[in-house]
Amino acid sequence: MHERNSVAELALTLRSELNRYSPGEKLPSSRALVERFRVSPVTVSRALATLAAEGLVVTRPGAGAFRAEPHPASAPPGDTSWQQVALSAEAGEEAVPRSVDAAGVIASLAGPPPGVIELSGGYLHPSLQPERALAAALARAGRRPGAWERPPLEGVAELRSWFAREIGGPTGSVTPSGVLVTAGGQSALTTALRALAPPGAPVLVESPTYPGVIAAARASGLRPVPVPVDAQGVRTDLLAEAFRAGRARVFVCQPLFHNPTGSVLAEDRRREVLRIAREAGAFVVEDDFARRLAHEDAPPLPPTLASEDADGVVVHVCSLTKFTSPSLRVGALAARGPVLDRLRAIQVVDSFFVPRPLQETAVELVGSPAWPRHRRALAAELRVRREALLAALGRELPGSEVAYVPPGGFHVWVRLPDGTDESALAAATLRAGVLVTPGRPFYPAEPAAPHLRLCFAAAAGVAELREGVRRLGAVMREV
Amino acid sequence: MHERNSVAELALTLRSELNRYSPGEKLPSSRALVERFRVSPVTVSRALATLAAEGLVVTRPGAGAFRAEPHPASAPPGDTSWQQVALSAEAGEEAVPRSVDAAGVIASLAGPPPGVIELSGGYLHPSLQPERALAAALARAGRRPGAWERPPLEGVAELRSWFAREIGGPTGSVTPSGVLVTAGGQSALTTALRALAPPGAPVLVESPTYPGVIAAARASGLRPVPVPVDAQGVRTDLLAEAFRAGRARVFVCQPLFHNPTGSVLAEDRRREVLRIAREAGAFVVEDDFARRLAHEDAPPLPPTLASEDADGVVVHVCSLTKFTSPSLRVGALAARGPVLDRLRAIQVVDSFFVPRPLQETAVELVGSPAWPRHRRALAAELRVRREALLAALGRELPGSEVAYVPPGGFHVWVRLPDGTDESALAAATLRAGVLVTPGRPFYPAEPAAPHLRLCFAAAAGVAELREGVRRLGAVMREV
Repeated sequence: MHERNSVAELALTLRSELNRYSPGEKLPSSRALVERFRVSPVTVSRALATLAAEGLVVTRPGAGAFRAEPHPASAPPGDTSWQQVALSAEAGEEAVPRSVDAAGVIASLAGPPPGVIELSGGYLHPSLQPERALAAALARAGRRPGAWERPPLEGVAELRSWFAREIGGPTGSVTPSGVLVTAGGQSALTTALRALAPPGAPVLVESPTYPGVIAAARASGLRPVPVPVDAQGVRTDLLAEAFRAGRARVFVCQPLFHNPTGSVLAEDRRREVLRIAREAGAFVVEDDFARRLAHEDAPPLPPTLASEDADGVVVHVCSLTKFTSPSLRVGALAARGPVLDRLRAIQVVDSFFVPRPLQETAVELVGSPAWPRHRRALAAELRVRREALLAALGRELPGSEVAYVPPGGFHVWVRLPDGTDESALAAATLRAGVLVTPGRPFYPAEPAAPHLRLCFAAAAGVAELREGVRRLGAVMREV
Repeated sequence: MHERNSVAELALTLRSELNRYSPGEKLPSSRALVERFRVSPVTVSRALATLAAEGLVVTRPGAGAFRAEPHPASAPPGDTSWQQVALSAEAGEEAVPRSVDAAGVIASLAGPPPGVIELSGGYLHPSLQPERALAAALARAGRRPGAWERPPLEGVAELRSWFAREIGGPTGSVTPSGVLVTAGGQSALTTALRALAPPGAPVLVESPTYPGVIAAARASGLRPVPVPVDAQGVRTDLLAEAFRAGRARVFVCQPLFHNPTGSVLAEDRRREVLRIAREAGAFVVEDDFARRLAHEDAPPLPPTLASEDADGVVVHVCSLTKFTSPSLRVGALAARGPVLDRLRAIQVVDSFFVPRPLQETAVELVGSPAWPRHRRALAAELRVRREALLAALGRELPGSEVAYVPPGGFHVWVRLPDGTDESALAAATLRAGVLVTPGRPFYPAEPAAPHLRLCFAAAAGVAELREGVRRLGAVMREV
């Protein structure tokens, strides 16, 4: 059982028992709880903190935990309704409408309730993460001299060199001086969008696309404009048209194992994307989030767009989190030309720099023998899981369709029968104990058809995948 | 000698010896360098990576390091000049002018060149950081079960509870559910500004104030509007006037040990700030960056503004970095009311969450016996250093004036004789081997008078502080 489940379960039990205590009464000691529930002190501490965060329990260091008073006299409820006016206030007649819709992102980040099978999500199940290698790398990083000192603002030099080699490939066309270490891929995307486009500007995105890029664009006051993708990646004829039609100076693209479809940008379209953007005087943000997630049976990978771009068209984004752990929030931006200074300025002003111990952990990890070993093991496991999911879908969801078998990444993009209500389906599926991701949030405008995105990396194993699809199929037959 | 110095020195030596090798020639092995320079393998690796980042050296894993070819045939220099047009493109007639000036922030973050005395900066010298406690906390955090799992988006519950107790104080008026864990104070400030004000809006800031808040506001398209401070903190008569004059809905304030002056907001003005903001329907961002930096002789600290605010006026920002290490990038936002959702949405969309190992490190550290011990030791040391700096200033800079002896924080704010050219002085001082911070970047508009901000926490010790001020005095007598 994973830590997060045991914490959630203990919190659930304690919550249900709280009525036995009067407000202000002391709960059993941590030690007593450890003995009674046979869990670790850390689990008890976390479960109590969860209840404290909910306002049900008050913890006092040294004294213990107490049932909270229903209305603590010390904190009279104030009147916060004025905030609704203040938060809607605009800068002037021409202000950009404000909307920060984090729902899609939160849905993909939040873990499932205990007992629910996760066919959603965008991270590896803990059993697929290189947990021991991470722990060893962190321990070694902590012993490195100067591990807590200020890192260079652009990132630790060894890590920049490593990213440059990975992004540039054998051509060596990406230099360490063109790399900025970032706090993961989402931060890198946000920094790129804020650097490249002023508030109010349009930004071209693939359709469907990763909801995090739509949310990041909107949160920065940008207007995402859809450009359709098919099994060969973005439709370059429509890309050219979209640049002509608007004043966009940025196109965000996932050329490799596109999220959600898994498609790979075809060779002739790669050249077209760069040519079209160059002619439009626009940047291509290459979100290369999945390069290390190729399945065992994937054909040889195309190089990054960044490695084939001499004119600074491409702003490259990548990250280690998908391949390792969501908490190894280390990624990179790579670019060339004046834009590099703009990216660096935004990153420094927003958040200073990436914590050095995490950067040193990444240096240790990518240099360890565990790194290539993990890559091989993961490639094999992802292939097995993808095949198991596809086979289960064929058995249990005969009315659905997977247009494209992804050679990399975590997801398959399942076309549902016309007229299916995705939201109702997702809600009914959750009642049956399975978390799935509706397709709607992947479209910046009207969706092409009803879809689900199913993840084969977040579940505990193949048996759980099969059981999840079985329950999904039963729900679909009902609705 | 600190690691960063030995890396910089080895890089300097290797750089000067590069001419001995022809382009493409192999440099001595890491092992040979370790033996010759009597440094650790990590230092050699970092020094080589520094040269690689400068494009002087190419490293190939397993093969070694080579002098770089002057113009690698594989990376023809492209034409990036089009970017200047693209980066100036605006969204429309009414677009917000774009300026991302990170110079002030970068100056305060970059370490000094080797051999230069640091009277600038905003972090503790490594010898004042709780290095062993940090290493122990990191090691314990790495062994916690689930250390690499996804944390709750709002932060690890134990840490939220701790922050709530620290921010709310004995009143208990700040609840864990009102706390978001952030990646340090600067990220928290940026999140607050982006959440509270739309692009183009004015935001009231103290004058002088911390350059990082001016830069963060401008990078988000906001217009910082100055409100003067004196020895009792912000001038509340002028604050009311500034709210009346404009349409600002946000005031950013450092009530405790204000940066750069060190002043503490007076009791009557605390109440006034909350009343004025409440009447204006505006938020107060309380940047409580220095609460743990009280000097040994400081009077009892006032509580946070957040703890005395029932109506959700205050958005509280705090951080652990100043008190520990710049790389423990863990801080908090605290708020109540609808604004909390807005803050959470911005943070999640921008950067997802704070890496769990760092949060667990913070939990371990604040719960360890080293925490109160460090607080006492630091309070004593900061007092000694402040007094040493003030005494040296009295001796060496008779023409300067320190209006306020700060009871906390890292800085004194030194008034220079009228007509002093701060930039010329800082440049001449650097030539004499001392890094100081000119006063100009602390003013959002015209400066009141020439100043320097001197830091007594970043130098190696009292002797170095005295030597720094001696050199500064000699330079001032010359110019």
